[in-house]
Amino acid sequence: MKNEITVYPPATVANVVCGFDVLGFALESPCDKMLVRLVPRRGVTIINKDDFDLPPEPEKNVAGAALLAMLKELPDDIGFEVESTKSIKPGSGIGSSAASASGAVVGANHLLGNRFSNTDLVRFAMSGEEVASGVKHADNLAPCIYGGVTLIRSMDPLDIIKLDAPPLYVTITHPQIEVKTSDARQILKKQILLTDAIKQWGNIAGLVAGLMKGDYALISRSLVDVLIEPVRSILIPGFDEIKRRSKEAGALGGGISGSGPAMFMLCKEEGTARQVAEVGKEVYAKIGLPCLTYQSRINPEGVRVSREPVLS
Amino acid sequence: MKNEITVYPPATVANVVCGFDVLGFALESPCDKMLVRLVPRRGVTIINKDDFDLPPEPEKNVAGAALLAMLKELPDDIGFEVESTKSIKPGSGIGSSAASASGAVVGANHLLGNRFSNTDLVRFAMSGEEVASGVKHADNLAPCIYGGVTLIRSMDPLDIIKLDAPPLYVTITHPQIEVKTSDARQILKKQILLTDAIKQWGNIAGLVAGLMKGDYALISRSLVDVLIEPVRSILIPGFDEIKRRSKEAGALGGGISGSGPAMFMLCKEEGTARQVAEVGKEVYAKIGLPCLTYQSRINPEGVRVSREPVLS
Repeated sequence: MKNEITVYPPATVANVVCGFDVLGFALESPCDKMLVRLVPRRGVTIINKDDFDLPPEPEKNVAGAALLAMLKELPDDIGFEVESTKSIKPGSGIGSSAASASGAVVGANHLLGNRFSNTDLVRFAMSGEEVASGVKHADNLAPCIYGGVTLIRSMDPLDIIKLDAPPLYVTITHPQIEVKTSDARQILKKQILLTDAIKQWGNIAGLVAGLMKGDYALISRSLVDVLIEPVRSILIPGFDEIKRRSKEAGALGGGISGSGPAMFMLCKEEGTARQVAEVGKEVYAKIGLPCLTYQSRINPEGVRVSREPVLS
Repeated sequence: MKNEITVYPPATVANVVCGFDVLGFALESPCDKMLVRLVPRRGVTIINKDDFDLPPEPEKNVAGAALLAMLKELPDDIGFEVESTKSIKPGSGIGSSAASASGAVVGANHLLGNRFSNTDLVRFAMSGEEVASGVKHADNLAPCIYGGVTLIRSMDPLDIIKLDAPPLYVTITHPQIEVKTSDARQILKKQILLTDAIKQWGNIAGLVAGLMKGDYALISRSLVDVLIEPVRSILIPGFDEIKRRSKEAGALGGGISGSGPAMFMLCKEEGTARQVAEVGKEVYAKIGLPCLTYQSRINPEGVRVSREPVLS
């Protein structure tokens, strides 16, 4: 049995427009790199090989907490070491902590002969997300572990459905400001109008149908959020202009990634995704705010497990 | 050109559980019978050949009002006569008025060489629904005219999507009580919790995915309504018992049809649908309330246009 493996957990987009709290997808890049090693003694060791200053104590580290949750269901003489080299900047809104938690559990499961199901892995990784945000959520974990576009139909019991989708290109624009997830959650209204909710579920039903039919026009018409975006986009300078100009450039639509500050736009063509990235750069240059942009296809696979032979 | 045709507009189920105001489907039976005749003079004549005592004045009659709306977009020397023989009892919650309006416009359009699109027909028929309920809604019209399972993604602009679905059997149980649509609407809360809305749109997304994948287990898990059914089912005696025992008998799930009093259950097998009908009869026999039951497949076609040659 191999005793170590390298995995590449990708960035993910959660809260996909009308799919707040239920719909997400995985990107091909950016992604982190993690070496996971199986050791013959109980416990988890985390070695951070990047400059993000994340805590090495396993119970305070998202990868560590996820693996500790997994260890509870494993024999006593098993443990893990993780060397983590992150590229996904924490606090960006594209699932940095979910990548760490997902990479750790997918790598560990691979070394254990894939004894756990994807649902089990999401469950373990949620303990990692709890360390990061105080909440056990699966919005980014589901697409990171399952790949592609995922629906969380229910959290209790956990019910994750992978949806078919046609080829889609994604542009992420990430202004270098901080939006705390807790602030983004606090400004949401707890009570909403039934009439608005009906519009929202008409749109998510349309979006799911559009994705499964491969109907780009329907996907575009359905990418409407009447509830969350109008409130949260206020926290992101330039949001409205970038969205408007991205659609003028041919993007199907998009919105806030996770709870921001990153935003995403979906495109049918790679060339459009490149133009959309230019729109973001222009708008933030004008505002005078540094920004990062990424272009990627939707990643149907999720966490990539290295196929290279590993010598140990 | 033929100058008359017989059409059979079917009953329909709207407000499909988590798909309140957006999701509906057509039945094969019961259905009405309508003879629609093209005449060379402006105007609409309605002849009711049943005992439901519906108004014959075209502007007060749902079929008449729908045809008057169509006439506004037609030359001056065209008119219609309709002989209507209804089987779908008005006030049942299975789209009686929608059948009248849909049958009239589908029949008329057929005689005109199908010059109008299905979306146009829904638009005309909405004027009929307005006569019946005071509201221009399309919940029953969309499945009646398009057939199968339909999603109304948006009312303005009108955006109707026909969804793929696997074979499904439906049992309708209709207790002989009156539930006014206006009352059923009035008892709904105008404000709802965001957390409840999230559950609802997780379920409608799951239901659309389940229908399109042909995944009966997912359809069943998604047939959950946390918002409307808990309030409205109070108006329908026996609802909870029938639902519980129908699911015990193997039904996938179900709920209130339209705004009631009819309820519907979806089943994978015809035999289960028959058992579910027996459950309804037993419960209402115990309560001492007369009831009607219908079993039908989901009707992929919508309004059936007679293939018989018509001599005139």
